[in-house]
Amino acid sequence: MNNEQMVVNAIRILSAEAVQKAKSGHPGMPMGSAAMAYAVWGKQMKHNPADPHWKDRDRFVLSSGHGSMLMYSLLHLFGYGLTIEDLKQFRQFGSKTPGHPEYGHTVGVETTTGPLGQGIANAVGMAIAEKHLAAKFNREGYDVVNHYTYCILGDGCMMEGISHEACSLAGTLKLNKLIALYDDNEISIEGNTDIAFREDVPARFRAYGWNVIDVADANCYCQVNAAITLAKKSDKPTLIVCHTKIGFGSPKEGMASSHGEPLGEENLAATKKNLGWPCTEPFGVPAEVYEETAKAQERGKAAEKAWDEKLEAYFKAYPEMKAEWDTWFSDELPVDLLNDEDFWKFEGKSATRASSGVVINRLAERIPNMIGGSADLAPSNKTNMKGKGDFSAETPEGANMHFGVREHAMAAICNGMKLHGGVRPYCATFFVFSDYMKNAMRMSSIMNLGVPYVLTHDSIGVGEDGPTHQPIEHLAGLRAIPGLIVFRPADSKEVAAGWYAAMTEHHPVALVLTRQDLPLYEKSGKDALKGGYILSDSEKATPDCLLMASGSEVEQCVEAQAALKAEGIDARVISMPSFELFDAQSEEYKESVMPKAVRARVAVEAAATFGWHKYVGLDGAVIGLDHFGASAPYKVLFKEFGFTAENVAATAKKVLGK
Amino acid sequence: MNNEQMVVNAIRILSAEAVQKAKSGHPGMPMGSAAMAYAVWGKQMKHNPADPHWKDRDRFVLSSGHGSMLMYSLLHLFGYGLTIEDLKQFRQFGSKTPGHPEYGHTVGVETTTGPLGQGIANAVGMAIAEKHLAAKFNREGYDVVNHYTYCILGDGCMMEGISHEACSLAGTLKLNKLIALYDDNEISIEGNTDIAFREDVPARFRAYGWNVIDVADANCYCQVNAAITLAKKSDKPTLIVCHTKIGFGSPKEGMASSHGEPLGEENLAATKKNLGWPCTEPFGVPAEVYEETAKAQERGKAAEKAWDEKLEAYFKAYPEMKAEWDTWFSDELPVDLLNDEDFWKFEGKSATRASSGVVINRLAERIPNMIGGSADLAPSNKTNMKGKGDFSAETPEGANMHFGVREHAMAAICNGMKLHGGVRPYCATFFVFSDYMKNAMRMSSIMNLGVPYVLTHDSIGVGEDGPTHQPIEHLAGLRAIPGLIVFRPADSKEVAAGWYAAMTEHHPVALVLTRQDLPLYEKSGKDALKGGYILSDSEKATPDCLLMASGSEVEQCVEAQAALKAEGIDARVISMPSFELFDAQSEEYKESVMPKAVRARVAVEAAATFGWHKYVGLDGAVIGLDHFGASAPYKVLFKEFGFTAENVAATAKKVLGK
Repeated sequence: MNNEQMVVNAIRILSAEAVQKAKSGHPGMPMGSAAMAYAVWGKQMKHNPADPHWKDRDRFVLSSGHGSMLMYSLLHLFGYGLTIEDLKQFRQFGSKTPGHPEYGHTVGVETTTGPLGQGIANAVGMAIAEKHLAAKFNREGYDVVNHYTYCILGDGCMMEGISHEACSLAGTLKLNKLIALYDDNEISIEGNTDIAFREDVPARFRAYGWNVIDVADANCYCQVNAAITLAKKSDKPTLIVCHTKIGFGSPKEGMASSHGEPLGEENLAATKKNLGWPCTEPFGVPAEVYEETAKAQERGKAAEKAWDEKLEAYFKAYPEMKAEWDTWFSDELPVDLLNDEDFWKFEGKSATRASSGVVINRLAERIPNMIGGSADLAPSNKTNMKGKGDFSAETPEGANMHFGVREHAMAAICNGMKLHGGVRPYCATFFVFSDYMKNAMRMSSIMNLGVPYVLTHDSIGVGEDGPTHQPIEHLAGLRAIPGLIVFRPADSKEVAAGWYAAMTEHHPVALVLTRQDLPLYEKSGKDALKGGYILSDSEKATPDCLLMASGSEVEQCVEAQAALKAEGIDARVISMPSFELFDAQSEEYKESVMPKAVRARVAVEAAATFGWHKYVGLDGAVIGLDHFGASAPYKVLFKEFGFTAENVAATAKKVLGK
Repeated sequence: MNNEQMVVNAIRILSAEAVQKAKSGHPGMPMGSAAMAYAVWGKQMKHNPADPHWKDRDRFVLSSGHGSMLMYSLLHLFGYGLTIEDLKQFRQFGSKTPGHPEYGHTVGVETTTGPLGQGIANAVGMAIAEKHLAAKFNREGYDVVNHYTYCILGDGCMMEGISHEACSLAGTLKLNKLIALYDDNEISIEGNTDIAFREDVPARFRAYGWNVIDVADANCYCQVNAAITLAKKSDKPTLIVCHTKIGFGSPKEGMASSHGEPLGEENLAATKKNLGWPCTEPFGVPAEVYEETAKAQERGKAAEKAWDEKLEAYFKAYPEMKAEWDTWFSDELPVDLLNDEDFWKFEGKSATRASSGVVINRLAERIPNMIGGSADLAPSNKTNMKGKGDFSAETPEGANMHFGVREHAMAAICNGMKLHGGVRPYCATFFVFSDYMKNAMRMSSIMNLGVPYVLTHDSIGVGEDGPTHQPIEHLAGLRAIPGLIVFRPADSKEVAAGWYAAMTEHHPVALVLTRQDLPLYEKSGKDALKGGYILSDSEKATPDCLLMASGSEVEQCVEAQAALKAEGIDARVISMPSFELFDAQSEEYKESVMPKAVRARVAVEAAATFGWHKYVGLDGAVIGLDHFGASAPYKVLFKEFGFTAENVAATAKKVLGK
């Protein structure tokens, strides 16, 4: 056995050992795809373990995240700082080796994976970022952005709709630097893939415009290596179909039972014997293995050094690019938006989606690396950046993305772009279709990726399109996601605040915007950054009652306040664009807005009442919609469903016992 | 112009007229696909407008739901009872012609569509139901179940991942009675489809195992008609690629601007002229049109009469099948589950997913037409029905579905099966992956379809798989959907109650189940059907405090109750498996469980706190998880994150000010 083959087997053995020790995990996938992974990491991938953040490194995504031990074995063997001790702590509380790979937690993990299909879509996003940055920065003789994105994915990812969406778009965009390796082991949890999955995957990918290469025995790293070399010559994204055996080398080879449980001590011993593994002690690895991977580390160091020199020469040849490069690759904004009064200036009434369109263009004038668009609803979502061109296979320098009607892939692609760095992605669709991309939004939150989601047509205000297009439960559903900031502005200035949060918080922000016109309030603006604030106060220091709302329903509260005043009731109107930002304020601030002593509270939102009781309690009332909407002009719906100043005032009186 | 062509143009004109009158809607799609639709409705489809519920009618699904005027024009012209007056009320409050077609609202609409891709997946479900029922009931010479399912879908549906999932499965299952007509007009909202969608759709469908037929000019109904005749000969599902022009016949023909807004009065007039339309008055239709469609109605009546006779002869030849038929096609259960004590009997501790597996098999013994399964997680979801065989192309009589890793299509397919009738579908995945099928679950709710969703691995109780696999916000997100019943049982008997609700409520029910073992409580059982009930009462009539929880956290409340008692605090434990069912109880009952006077309330749930304040108010506390989980053995996580009896007791004391 040569030393390279020893590394392949080390991946298999370490993976099986760690799962065995944890008494939990997935040994089959890492064992089956060890040779594929070695061909990438040991032979082809441009990476420098000594600098995992090298900007021009090749990216690697393990879309089959349950095979996390493949990742951890690689990170250990190639010198990313993961120790044998870390591997022994696989799946234990606080360890660096959790059940699925976690970005920001384990050095060298480029994205959190686990929910199937997310990884391949992230990889498409990374390849888009690379193509866009290359178009922006590269000059004749100076390919300062020039790297591949590799992705390993299995049958599960292949079946998920998101992989279809992402790969269809990748073909359309001719992402030739994307190389996906399909771990085609013909085994799924319920048995042979034949029971549910008989499609011709190579033909499908050719239909998407991909280059497809078949590797007959992908348990041999040399064959995979040759295929990658070939893939690099294509002008299309490449799918390398790798015929593998799940649980390779073990007595459970080819069996579904090797997928999601430890092999068992006996089978582990038999595997070592089968593979001719020289170490009998648990987690033992022969010195030759590390000697071999040390070579890859040396190559990586040399490669980064050569790139550093190229970048320096590039900046000399094109000195104007230095500042641009630094701006694009900085986490900080190049401008002080908070004190840029032009950014916050609006006049007259406007639909918040329209104000958002204005803000996007103000941002695009100030921040050069914004890239984004909509799932085929740009004219409705108002997401187009004027003069920024379209991103396409032919015009990769363009910054307006056309994602197609592919919400789920869109969000995961934005995650991938954000993870890549150098660009600031955003995306958009109708709010109701956030449903289609829910898990990708969750992944933005898990990874603390500041992706702005532009979600327009936010309530029954949609009007005639009816219940399938009118969000009801969506505000509650998104507000309940940890780390996601939901922001539903009441006017244009609050829109600017929402976008400010989206550009500065290291969290995803869902901007929830109206189709219909809303007023502009005098006192709105930067206070909205506190999530909730007094938009129109009572005369008394302690109001008789609190009227609170987000977005379009603030208007009915303001009107009701006036009506109540005429009846001698002194109400305070609180605009609540964001529960999350409000909850993060000091107790003093919150008390100043919502005094504990005032229990007469009415919340108004054209959406499910779910969640508002946190602010109105058992003694207050919520005017909401705990049923689906209807198809009619929106003003009719607001009236029919009780979103009127009259109803708000009447409810306040009821709560006050009057 | 022959009379058939007149009908085609009537569809175009009526659609454009109605959108014009409503000043809102989508004229382009109905105008472009009128000939396709006429070929189906006028030439090929077996339907009897006089009996829209004929069990063996062909099904028709308009997946491009925004083209609703196509549907309404057809329903009017073919005599389904929709009047010209109804068409004039298009998109108005309370009309029979809402913005998107609504099942249960407008006679002849087989499913609610609008969110793209749902319809084609519903159609796959209908075709599965037909295949299964045919395998069950048909006998030599008696094809009492023998109908086609037609579906019109456009570029939007084609791009959505759900269409990939559903169509890949349809190919695997060889659903040869499914005929999909692709309205290939090359126009999407952002412009030519080329900007985002360059895939070779026919090649993609061939890769899925479909028969593909190309119709060069699908503005001609004869060509489409010939293609359908050909499609019926295939042993595979067929995609008929129909090259059409959006907005056909209008000055906006082929333009994106004809998609989502009225043509304008001038363009409408020009369209009438272009098409040689004889009526100038709005909504005018020549008599020849109705004469022509009357023929189809007569054919339909004759066809149903012939089928009635066949069914009668079949019941004579196979008298034992009469009762089976009636059972299968009845909305009522064939057994009295509520009083079937064997159904409710359990012993010892059990994971609720395991109890659910037991219940599913008890149901399958009693109810013959259950069909369902999992998105490749059956061994974990415990959804297999013993002895019921697998549903496959070769064994359509089997009732265990293998959906593959395709959650979104799975749910929409179940909607389609339920809509078809004759079968009782259910489906399953990990709770966290309800994310992937969220919109299809919403569609179950919009249509009041009683689909049971088996959602296991319901919290950090998942353990080692970590945050990507541990639901946090999912309970809140689903509870906020109107009409969906979320049921998270605390023990095996509550599982039976949840399944009882799932089988009897005309609403979808999400059964949220643990991976880990839970105790069996003495007082649990049918009371759980009230959604919330006293599981372990205080000694005093009015307790000192309320401890409430759902599912696995009931255990910590019961333990805390004992600990508090030792300190002289008299707590009541309320098991809350379902907010929705509890909220539906009488005010008296709710007061008897949660007396308004008792403000010391603690809710415990290993999930987002969001939504629980409705029951604990401003003075209570929620022990929950407003952050993501972690990878570790589940007992470690429960302890680390505060789900212990000690913490519940301590929180109760804090709330009591002690």
